[in-house]
This record gives sequence, structure tokens and C-alpha cells, in this order.
Amino acid sequence: MNRQIKLARFPADKLSANDFFIANGKVPEPGPGQLLVRTQLISIDAANRAWIQGSTYRSVIGKGTVMAGLAISEVVVSNSPAFRTGDLVLAESGWQQLAVVDAASAIKQPPVAEITHLLSVYGTSSLTAHIGLLTIGQLKADDTLVVSAAAGSVGTAVGQIAKIVGARVIGIAGGQEKCAWLVEELGFDGAIDYRDNISLGLRHEVPDGIDVYFDNVGGEVFERCLFAMKDYGRIVCCGAVSLYDGPKPPSGPRGVPGLIVTKRLTLQGFIVTDHGIAQPLEDLRRWVSEGKFRPVEAVIEGLDAAPQALVDQLAGANRGKCMVRVN
Amino acid sequence: MNRQIKLARFPADKLSANDFFIANGKVPEPGPGQLLVRTQLISIDAANRAWIQGSTYRSVIGKGTVMAGLAISEVVVSNSPAFRTGDLVLAESGWQQLAVVDAASAIKQPPVAEITHLLSVYGTSSLTAHIGLLTIGQLKADDTLVVSAAAGSVGTAVGQIAKIVGARVIGIAGGQEKCAWLVEELGFDGAIDYRDNISLGLRHEVPDGIDVYFDNVGGEVFERCLFAMKDYGRIVCCGAVSLYDGPKPPSGPRGVPGLIVTKRLTLQGFIVTDHGIAQPLEDLRRWVSEGKFRPVEAVIEGLDAAPQALVDQLAGANRGKCMVRVN
Repeated sequence: MNRQIKLARFPADKLSANDFFIANGKVPEPGPGQLLVRTQLISIDAANRAWIQGSTYRSVIGKGTVMAGLAISEVVVSNSPAFRTGDLVLAESGWQQLAVVDAASAIKQPPVAEITHLLSVYGTSSLTAHIGLLTIGQLKADDTLVVSAAAGSVGTAVGQIAKIVGARVIGIAGGQEKCAWLVEELGFDGAIDYRDNISLGLRHEVPDGIDVYFDNVGGEVFERCLFAMKDYGRIVCCGAVSLYDGPKPPSGPRGVPGLIVTKRLTLQGFIVTDHGIAQPLEDLRRWVSEGKFRPVEAVIEGLDAAPQALVDQLAGANRGKCMVRVN
Repeated sequence: MNRQIKLARFPADKLSANDFFIANGKVPEPGPGQLLVRTQLISIDAANRAWIQGSTYRSVIGKGTVMAGLAISEVVVSNSPAFRTGDLVLAESGWQQLAVVDAASAIKQPPVAEITHLLSVYGTSSLTAHIGLLTIGQLKADDTLVVSAAAGSVGTAVGQIAKIVGARVIGIAGGQEKCAWLVEELGFDGAIDYRDNISLGLRHEVPDGIDVYFDNVGGEVFERCLFAMKDYGRIVCCGAVSLYDGPKPPSGPRGVPGLIVTKRLTLQGFIVTDHGIAQPLEDLRRWVSEGKFRPVEAVIEGLDAAPQALVDQLAGANRGKCMVRVN
């Protein structure tokens, strides 16, 4: 048998665990050039919610189909000369125990000390942080950086990489406890609780303005940061998680595009898969070995917990990279 | 005497000619390094309205002071070795017959066939179009360009320059008559009346999407174009005229920043004065001499007509570069 989590309906507003159901599928048969894989760790990402909201950089997920998601899996049967039984791969195998994936779309994983590091350090989140910060945002040592969703999987990586580069780093996160943790444990220079007055926090933490704003959330936090940008500032548009978990997104921040003009801002959107990852991976390995980059993980046990894990992720319950271990 | 137009009050909503009053000032005395100039042609720009709305790239204009504005003026008295009586200069001399300006901030104008060409072809509008399109937007021959406020001073220049580059050019303007004029007289490939259904117009005119959107207006037109962008498209943020003539700007377009991410867009704001203008001026002179670039002008007679000229400009009454001739 193959335990699966399927999408029951498109949520009208906030996502709930009841929007999914558990099914028992058959064990699928790999065809030529395909792999049968057994899921080990499912990556839980805010973007998963956007995939249910509508078409994005991918088609919307169909009702009644297995929930899509990236995972680290072990090859059980290989019909490809490039993989052997026992290999670990990153593939979009979805929320299920067993999956068939095209060998061409599976990425073989290197040996690591902890399998969870494949998602927390060497996975999409850290690569997104690296590419967004250094390739898109062109962060420099004397820049002041602000990152939203700072305690999340991308945010914790952004903050750590920015400190390695030498920038001044301010995080925006939900709750005083998370904010204190960012400063005390992750070495951020300051943190702003978005449940407080964000503008006041920005005036206090970045009185001279923001050089680079790494935006993971959109909405009101984006707007507040827009007003706090320095002239010629850069905004890295990475995600808009504040807008995913609900119906049609509301109107955008005031000051768009007026402030973009008067402040001569550059806003640039990007998707990690458009970019080469060899250099980012090499950097991350070096930083980990030098003790400069610390994996931050929230590992949740059991496939059946995946729906609630995503709901909690959207509510900001986790720190760092959230993943579900499939037993 | 020195006839002047002063700002009476900050308009609560739309600008009216009654927000200004006429005053008779004294003839000012130029100090060392200054010029006394007599105004010839005042440039009327939508941006003038933004200067009254709040601080932008310059401080807000004070109540009771002479309305600010760029003008072509003739030097009457020069206390600078760089200028002589009779020289034509571009300077921010404001809405008045006579003004004292710093010689360092005045730009000597070359001889031209028609003095109006100094504003319509070689002035801020065409330079803004050139720099925005080629330096910021990086327009290429096989691109599809959409420009809003297409019949305006910047828009008519953007469209003509884009055609010279070889791009496919679609304009957005108000009214069927203007739209027909853009296609028949200025050589645009198509035009969309923003009073009609903009999305439908975009689907019809740019079914494959927009490579470069040159935004002069912001607001709903910006939003509609955002949804019609190709992946990796570029948006040149030049102005937001739809948001200037009223109170605090409303919330911005939906899809910001979500669509910026999923479409991997780049939005970049710019101000013409940050950029070198030697090459743009050389290009414009060559294009005019080759008959490829046509000055489009709306010349209004008399200083007292300046307030209504600005009101009309904001209502989209003019085609091309609007200016007031001071007799």
C-alpha cells in the first residue's frame, strides 16, 4: 500500500488540515527512465499554499490529487543507469510514501552528516537565500539589510549569509520571543516584531534607511519597508506569504509605483530554479564547515502530520526549515 | 513689475486653477554668480502636481510661494562669466516673468530652429523617454513595448524612440481619437483606450505578453499591465500620474509583489537628472535631422493660463509636450 495525502478542496480562506484527506493508493510501477522512490523527508514550504491558491510559476494543484511537494527520497527501483537502489534524491514526489518520478527530474544528493541538512542547509531555502541576496540583491559589506519572515527557512539563511558578507542585519518576525532569538542565537543586529508598530521599529532599527530589503511576505510589511528604503535601494522579491493563505490577494502596498520612482528603487522577482546552484552549494558547505552557518530545523514526525505542519508553517509557528519525516 | 503665479493652497482633491493666485512681485536683484532671466516658455508637467502633493525627489512647494517649474528663459543680467545677455537657458525659474537663478544651476541652450523644440525634443520629456527606454528598460528590436500616457510628452517620445529601435509599440491613452492618432500619425503598432476594458485590449494587442512596460501612470493601468507581463519582463517606473491629482495615494495594484516573484519581473524607478544626457541629446538631434522623430507640442499662450494648462494636462487634454509661452 501507498499512504497518500490528497487535496480535498480549495480553501475559501485560510488553509485547514481538513482541506486534505488521507488515501491508500496502489504501489506505482516505474516505466523506462523512471524511478520508484520511498519518501524520507517532505519539505514544508509557504509556497505550497500558493500552489493551491492559483497558477503561479506552476499550474494550480488539482482537487483530489496527491498534494505536491519536494522531498528527499530513497530510490527503491531504478530504471535509469544514472541511479541505483539506495541513492538519495531530491524530487517532487509529493505527500505520499511511495512515488514514481522521472529520473531526469530527480537530483542525486551527496552524502551528508545529517539527512535533514539536505533540506535545511543545502536545499531550496538556503539556495534561495544565497541567490536572492548575492545575485539578485547584490548585497555588500556596508549595506543595511532588512529581511521579513526572518525566523523562517529562507529568513534564517538570509540573515546568516548577510552577516557572513558583513552587512548590518535587521529581521522582521512575529513575536518578541522569536525576535530575541534572532538577535541572541543567530547573531542578527536587531529584530522588529511585526505585531508591534513596524514603522516605529524601522525608524528605531534603521534610522538611515534600508539598502536591501529581502521580501518574503508582501502586504503591509512590504509597504512599511518601501517607505523606509534609501534612494537607489534594492528590493529582492522572493515571496509574498502574507498573501497566500486566503482568497484573492488584496490590493498591494501604497506607494507602488510612486515610491519606486521617487526613490529610484529596483525591485526584482526571482525563482531559485532559474539559477545555477554550484557556487551557492560550495559556499554553504564551506560556511558550515567553518562554523559560520548553522542549520535551523523544525522536524515533524509522520506523513499524516503534513497538513497541520503546513497550516502551522503559515501561522509562523516554526523556526527555520520545516520538514516532515515519513516513517 | 514681475507678474507671478503663486500657490494659494494645497488642493484636498483634484487640482483647480483656483488653487493659485496672481501676484505682482518686485523685479529681483541678481547677486554674485547669479542671473536675472526673463521667462519665455514654461514646461507644464504632470510631475508639477506631485510636487504639491508631498515631498518627492524634492521638497513640497510652500503655500504662498511662486509655483515651481522648469522654463526656457533669456538672460537679462548676468553676474557670471559663463553667460551673456541674450543667452537662452533652461532653469527652474518658476511661474513668473522674471527670476533670479544661480548660474551654476542654469543650462545654456544651443541654437535651434524653433525655441519650442528645446522643451519638446531636447527637454526633460524626450531625455526621460530615451534614458528610461534604453538605459533602464534595455529595449531591444524584437521586444514588445507598452507605454501608458502614450499621447503625452514622455509617451509620444517613448513610442517614437521604440519604433526607431525596431520594437513593436502599443500605446495606452484616453479616448478613441487619441488612440487613432497614435497609430495613424505617430506610427504606433496599436493603441488601447484605457476608458475601455484594458485587459481585453491587452489580450488583443499583446496576446504573447509584454517585454517592456513603460509606466507613466501607476494605478489600475499599471495593475492590468502587470498581469500581462511576460516572464522576465521589465517595468520602467517613470511616473504615476494617475495618483498625483488627489489626496493620499490609494493602495497599489493587486499582484504586487506576488506577480513580481512568479513572473521574475524587474521594476526599476529612475529620475532623468541622475543620468548623463550627452548621448541621448546626440541621438535625438540625429533622429530629428533624419526625419525619424517628430516634435509633438501643445503651446498655450500667456503666463496667466499656466494653472489651467496644468489642470488640463492632468485631465489628459494635451498631446505631446505642453508648455506655456510667456509674452
